[in-house]
Amino acid sequence: MNSIKSFSDLINHLNERESRKRIVVVWAADDHTTQACARALDCGFADFIFVGCKQYVESQLHGHADGAHVKFVDAESPVDAAVKAVAMVRNDEADALMKGLINTDDLLHAVLNKQTGILPSGKVLTHITIADIPQYDRLLLFSDPAVIPYPTQEQRIEQIKYMATICSALGITQPKISLIHCTEKTNTKIFPFTADYAAIKEMAGEGKFGNVIVDGPLDLKTSCDLESMKGKNINSPIAGKADALIFPDIEAGNVFYKTITLFCGAQTAGLLQGTKAPVVLSSRADTPESKFYSLAIASI
Amino acid sequence: MNSIKSFSDLINHLNERESRKRIVVVWAADDHTTQACARALDCGFADFIFVGCKQYVESQLHGHADGAHVKFVDAESPVDAAVKAVAMVRNDEADALMKGLINTDDLLHAVLNKQTGILPSGKVLTHITIADIPQYDRLLLFSDPAVIPYPTQEQRIEQIKYMATICSALGITQPKISLIHCTEKTNTKIFPFTADYAAIKEMAGEGKFGNVIVDGPLDLKTSCDLESMKGKNINSPIAGKADALIFPDIEAGNVFYKTITLFCGAQTAGLLQGTKAPVVLSSRADTPESKFYSLAIASI
Repeated sequence: MNSIKSFSDLINHLNERESRKRIVVVWAADDHTTQACARALDCGFADFIFVGCKQYVESQLHGHADGAHVKFVDAESPVDAAVKAVAMVRNDEADALMKGLINTDDLLHAVLNKQTGILPSGKVLTHITIADIPQYDRLLLFSDPAVIPYPTQEQRIEQIKYMATICSALGITQPKISLIHCTEKTNTKIFPFTADYAAIKEMAGEGKFGNVIVDGPLDLKTSCDLESMKGKNINSPIAGKADALIFPDIEAGNVFYKTITLFCGAQTAGLLQGTKAPVVLSSRADTPESKFYSLAIASI
Repeated sequence: MNSIKSFSDLINHLNERESRKRIVVVWAADDHTTQACARALDCGFADFIFVGCKQYVESQLHGHADGAHVKFVDAESPVDAAVKAVAMVRNDEADALMKGLINTDDLLHAVLNKQTGILPSGKVLTHITIADIPQYDRLLLFSDPAVIPYPTQEQRIEQIKYMATICSALGITQPKISLIHCTEKTNTKIFPFTADYAAIKEMAGEGKFGNVIVDGPLDLKTSCDLESMKGKNINSPIAGKADALIFPDIEAGNVFYKTITLFCGAQTAGLLQGTKAPVVLSSRADTPESKFYSLAIASI
């Protein structure tokens, strides 16, 4: 498999694949969600189970689906739909879960329920975004713009493991993961997380994350631009070609996400990781394209 | 005066102005610095005093300057040049200071010296960037990508005052200042600075910052894009047209700075504020254009 360097590569890869993933969708009462599902059906990489909103979904998918690839389960409310969809993932009846028109807190409540949810005990829940930025020559993964405010060392380690897994699924043989900070200097007094970075680098050197390159602290430009790295007289194996970025906190990750989508024309896909199966947790403001690419990443 | 909405507007405004500002330059031993100064001389909005490197500067400025607009002061080293340049600002012999090829720490050492420096007692030193982003219809100021790691409430208040001053100099009659956070929800437990934001909004409402609009917490998209604001059912007087952003910490500010310059084709100017006169503290990696626009903002 060649490495996937753009969303267009990703869709081509999925188009050529014979198998389909089973996606369960919670309360698909909005057209951005149904448009994304229609496109995935046209591409043929996913089957869908819609929980709730049967009549609306059928009208929206008219011409895109036949009975073999779409099923319906009744639900009385978005919350009821969430509980039923989560149970299907838990019982191996679905390979991924997608949020429709339901309050995020309500969906997470079902996902995180200790008895009936799908976050295994001890697993770290985090959000990973995959971005296709026109001005960058490869996909760029980053974490965490949405879930963990100030990651602990344990949480950062899990983020790196999830990154390595997704990069591997994208055919990236030796992913380059950059630990982001505003400078390249470790300063454990003002920025304690830079000490964590040093420990993570050591673990990576010992092969704890498999065949990945981890370096940091590096700033965003040094991570993604070879000329900027050279201009600072820095020598990093990332070499301006980061595949993935670990941000120090949610504020930095969120600003990056919103800047590339607002000002750079970037397309993004987003997934919750840590759960038994990937959860597509797009926000209301996301475009149908973003939801479609999230489905594609969840189906890889 | 019409409000200045781009660097091109800014240069036109300075071209039409009769008066010139006096800029003292510390150890201009690199061509990015001299190119920026040459362009400012061609535009005619500044006179220069170069401290150190006379021979190099004269060769670089050949054809751009005559004796009436350029002076030289001898210096033995970058550090000596910094001390002399700071003294000139202190003695009202210069209106702004520009960093050449000198280590930032060495320059700041001279600037911050309690006896001979130029940071008045009790003043807050912070960094403000002014960005011209092709995809945005106005200049966007933000703070702090470079100096204060995690601003205190007092420091944030000073940042807003500096923002208001620069916006006023740019002819923006009622600047819109947005307090950035990853969501619009105040959460004093996990994000204590959102409580500070509430207090700052109250001060703004009482007119403590003059004729400015301050709102937050708002995320980056809600601050800079009306459609994103509407999509979230939020009603803010910023209305997707922020003139200035206060970032929660240096990591978020630094990521924004580096993302817009690397991926969005943005031009930027940067200034230290709080000192007796503006200090242009560009980094080695900055382009001659960036240094030129910084000179222009310092000369306004």
